[in-house]
Amino acid sequence: MSPKITTELLKQLRQVMKNPRYVQEPVQAYIVPSGDAHQSEYIAPCDCRRAFISGFDGSAGTAIVTEQHAAMWTDGRYFLQAAQQMDTNWTLMKMGLKDTPTQEDWLVSVLPEGSKVGVDPFIIPADQWKRMSKALRSAGHDLVPVKENLIDTIWTDCPQRPCKPLITLDLSYTGISWRDKIVALRSKMAERKVMWFVVTALDEVAWLFNLRGSDVEYNPVFFAYAVIGMNTIRLFIDGDRMMDPAVREHLQLDSTLEPEFRIQVMPYGSILSELQAVAAGLSPKEKVWLSDKASYALTEAIPKAYRYLTPYTPICIAKAVKNTAETEGMRRAHIKDAVALCELFNWLEKEVPKGAVTEIVAADKAEEFRSQQKDFVELSFATISSTGPNGAIIHYKPVPETNRTLSVNEIYLLDSGAQYKDGTTDVTRTMHFGTPSAYEKECFTYVLKGHIAVSAAIFPNGTKGHLLDSFARSALWDCGLDYLHGTGHGVGSFLNVHEGPCGISYKTFADEPLEAGMIVSDEPGYYEDGSFGIRIENVVLVIPAETKYNFKNRGSLTFEPLTLVPIQTKMIDVNLLTEKECNWVNEYHEKCREVVGAELERQGRHEALQWLLRETEPLARVQ
Amino acid sequence: MSPKITTELLKQLRQVMKNPRYVQEPVQAYIVPSGDAHQSEYIAPCDCRRAFISGFDGSAGTAIVTEQHAAMWTDGRYFLQAAQQMDTNWTLMKMGLKDTPTQEDWLVSVLPEGSKVGVDPFIIPADQWKRMSKALRSAGHDLVPVKENLIDTIWTDCPQRPCKPLITLDLSYTGISWRDKIVALRSKMAERKVMWFVVTALDEVAWLFNLRGSDVEYNPVFFAYAVIGMNTIRLFIDGDRMMDPAVREHLQLDSTLEPEFRIQVMPYGSILSELQAVAAGLSPKEKVWLSDKASYALTEAIPKAYRYLTPYTPICIAKAVKNTAETEGMRRAHIKDAVALCELFNWLEKEVPKGAVTEIVAADKAEEFRSQQKDFVELSFATISSTGPNGAIIHYKPVPETNRTLSVNEIYLLDSGAQYKDGTTDVTRTMHFGTPSAYEKECFTYVLKGHIAVSAAIFPNGTKGHLLDSFARSALWDCGLDYLHGTGHGVGSFLNVHEGPCGISYKTFADEPLEAGMIVSDEPGYYEDGSFGIRIENVVLVIPAETKYNFKNRGSLTFEPLTLVPIQTKMIDVNLLTEKECNWVNEYHEKCREVVGAELERQGRHEALQWLLRETEPLARVQ
Repeated sequence: MSPKITTELLKQLRQVMKNPRYVQEPVQAYIVPSGDAHQSEYIAPCDCRRAFISGFDGSAGTAIVTEQHAAMWTDGRYFLQAAQQMDTNWTLMKMGLKDTPTQEDWLVSVLPEGSKVGVDPFIIPADQWKRMSKALRSAGHDLVPVKENLIDTIWTDCPQRPCKPLITLDLSYTGISWRDKIVALRSKMAERKVMWFVVTALDEVAWLFNLRGSDVEYNPVFFAYAVIGMNTIRLFIDGDRMMDPAVREHLQLDSTLEPEFRIQVMPYGSILSELQAVAAGLSPKEKVWLSDKASYALTEAIPKAYRYLTPYTPICIAKAVKNTAETEGMRRAHIKDAVALCELFNWLEKEVPKGAVTEIVAADKAEEFRSQQKDFVELSFATISSTGPNGAIIHYKPVPETNRTLSVNEIYLLDSGAQYKDGTTDVTRTMHFGTPSAYEKECFTYVLKGHIAVSAAIFPNGTKGHLLDSFARSALWDCGLDYLHGTGHGVGSFLNVHEGPCGISYKTFADEPLEAGMIVSDEPGYYEDGSFGIRIENVVLVIPAETKYNFKNRGSLTFEPLTLVPIQTKMIDVNLLTEKECNWVNEYHEKCREVVGAELERQGRHEALQWLLRETEPLARVQ
Repeated sequence: MSPKITTELLKQLRQVMKNPRYVQEPVQAYIVPSGDAHQSEYIAPCDCRRAFISGFDGSAGTAIVTEQHAAMWTDGRYFLQAAQQMDTNWTLMKMGLKDTPTQEDWLVSVLPEGSKVGVDPFIIPADQWKRMSKALRSAGHDLVPVKENLIDTIWTDCPQRPCKPLITLDLSYTGISWRDKIVALRSKMAERKVMWFVVTALDEVAWLFNLRGSDVEYNPVFFAYAVIGMNTIRLFIDGDRMMDPAVREHLQLDSTLEPEFRIQVMPYGSILSELQAVAAGLSPKEKVWLSDKASYALTEAIPKAYRYLTPYTPICIAKAVKNTAETEGMRRAHIKDAVALCELFNWLEKEVPKGAVTEIVAADKAEEFRSQQKDFVELSFATISSTGPNGAIIHYKPVPETNRTLSVNEIYLLDSGAQYKDGTTDVTRTMHFGTPSAYEKECFTYVLKGHIAVSAAIFPNGTKGHLLDSFARSALWDCGLDYLHGTGHGVGSFLNVHEGPCGISYKTFADEPLEAGMIVSDEPGYYEDGSFGIRIENVVLVIPAETKYNFKNRGSLTFEPLTLVPIQTKMIDVNLLTEKECNWVNEYHEKCREVVGAELERQGRHEALQWLLRETEPLARVQ
């Protein structure tokens, strides 16, 4: 990796920072955050502005350019990569280290008195704006919105904003029509006494209208906003996508609907002016509901007295609780995904010993098998295919420079998933194609015990996921081990593989309580730097649990694994399992056999079926 | 319980709310919070102003009086009591119910436009002031500080502020001199670049100077403030307590000390003016450190630019980590406490069947046995002595109206503790003096499993206590049961029985990480309304744990029980215990035998020793 030469670019940026065509007054600093106008986790190439200006293309980082300096804040995952990708114009600010200044403190230390700090108000979330603005103001500076994105003004070969065709999803996939979703949303709005709701997150727009897109890799979303009133629906979207007869039919654009269900289609770029018009027409006490993570630009369009901000929107919460059509779809998707992985692991078992399977080859093969399955759309994230020491790099993605060959002497970790029209998958299996060491088996078994502890946990209705996180760690902790990531995240239904508002982590205390129908991942791990990585991940569905008693009539919940891929028994030290854990593994494998076995049979995949049968032989505890 | 007649009092209060002698402008509402000027959990009689004005004397509640209304906010524990103690002048605001307005919303709904809301700035914590003030201002009202407490102006027979003699603690109790504590505090101040530290919590003043008092029942503290500069020490305290030669000697008030260790003694009431003088003398960048829970009056005395506020003070954190002298003292205190309880339980076993032991008699007897022990000072909280259905009332305290007689047919729950000069105790045991039902044993055993799960937990250094809370609930959750309180709180060393900054609860996410030397309680429970309550509580010390591996060289921690009182084996369903849990009980009882047995022997308490030996017979698991 050679660094990007940014001298000329920075010179150009510093010129536009003073150019009255773009800024009312010169700005002495310009902030380039990651992220797009929708606060998406995955972004389109045209939104990779921070990577363009600096060369650093990791998933997290904020660049700040002043007259004299250019600095990049990123976290421990990316220290090495950022240092390699950036030239000497840039100073790397290592977040999490004691002596690293915050962006605010650094700005205050380098800026001349009374400076203006510019930022694109569409890219910065309102809550971040507030924090940054307050800190700068108290030091005599001003954070100012710069309407035109200054990077865009110098990015001559900036890719176009994607505008790909839409997929319509019928009731058999979504379980509920967009019309009924609007009705439910309006009833939530009435409950909170708000008149308008602004949909800013891309997956929320997609979910609300039962549409999917492919504007962003891995995430079946499309660039759009929506503004829902008690009697109006406005969808802000570009291109000729609304000319597609299937979409017109789906949204009933040409039908004579009751006025409150007529969708007004407007240009994507008109959201701000339309929102300002809405704001201008508000009567006292009429509120507008936005996520507190919506952009500063849209939040600011609503006068403070009229704003109703919440960390989670009613759509985010409704979307997290899957209905029967969605859970059935997720089940089907996971069975197909399991078929693909049985094929893959059977293939790897034969090919790895020959010495020609690299991490990239294995990842490609996984995609090939998945793409043979019905309703396959794309992968749900970049496949983590890692062997030996690469497995210890938690966010690893094989590239030619690091691509390692799988062997019978190393542990192989595959974390992968796909988007099917009926559901989203995300599964991690850790395999050994030779003979694992006793130590590798020991560590694997602790991780498995943690996985089971969460998967089999019974807990009261209303419990937040973060209260379950320690269950996943207990067996590791007993031996002085641990892993430095959360245990689980929400998973969308043919939507983003990471979604709120629930999860299982020692970090997320703002999570919403788990309820039946929510879907999360269960993925404890153990990583030994320089030697191996272990992770066992299933996607699990929250279901009601039957219990002997029922305290305060609250009811209880537990998890049902949707992922049905064998857990390599060769890696298990059976003597470390309790009888209950041993039974869990055997029952899980019995279900894999039954459900996935039947599908393999149906698809005529006999060799993979044989592999499945062998891999799901019951464990026998040594007494 | 008949309600207090408050008509005349409210009339008087409403008069002083308009009296220019006390208020610059009339206030249309006056807030009477619980609590004293030090934000103490337990308060002195002279600070029970909310109880005086309303009649309601529960531990939590806020009264607000307007021209027309008088309203009381309290939580579910006190709905019944508050309703019984207050007359019809008062409206009960049931906190936690959906339709109950917040204090701010209620004020906004009842006040005429542009009202002034008064409150004693010494009683309201700065963080509460900020929230309330903001809400009122945004509705066009003003929160104003009323210098003189308006309740005090009408409380003609208000008890005097206590001013009892002090106890000096030498190094054998404290392990570290007050001088060295000042040195350590100043080094923390230097680290954070602050010039002054204001000590506002009573237990922090007591700890810092190695002094104890008895101004507040159960808490060995005294009314005082301290202001520590880099070169000065000011102690604000009233009465002739500083005339006591032992105290003068302890504080070296008559010695020729280096100037930075000379303690200037000043009147308690002069804190505000002295702090204002400190503020007036500050140079730019000189900061003053306060708890963010300090009173609004003291916080406001420091201009905003000079304030350094933290949720936990350096004293709070240092105090929580006990040194060897303190842990040895706590061990001694717990052995003596165990001796008293062995005597008590032996006595109860003989007396309960005769039918003359009430909850109050049992509580008194417990105090009698404790008071026979060396260095006994007082109880550490009001004894919870509860039998049968009273045991299900979590914050129960027996009073003549509720006093129930112990019997061989009901479960008895005793949660009690004492202050000894060498340590503070807090222990709960649940006993049956007849034959418990299978269901009672089952519930008891789940609670015990939870107790053991926390007590035996191994976890990495740096883990916060709230991450352990679910371990205590897992066995109950498995059967659909739970308890609606936290699992543990910090315990002081001959100080407050509840102290920050650590604890074990699903609620406290602001807790500081556990470290070796911290002391917390481990007290899961199960309560069945109208029939029984179960709780098993030990005070436990955080100690380093030996583990097989040591991830990232972080080290591990676990707990050592300081409480050494038998857990009634009669209540245990041994078949519900794992082998590991069974061993834990047997090892715990073995230690009780050894340590407490030796002390009973030494004290010649042979009958209690026989009781101990019988109660600590090893459990035998049925195979």
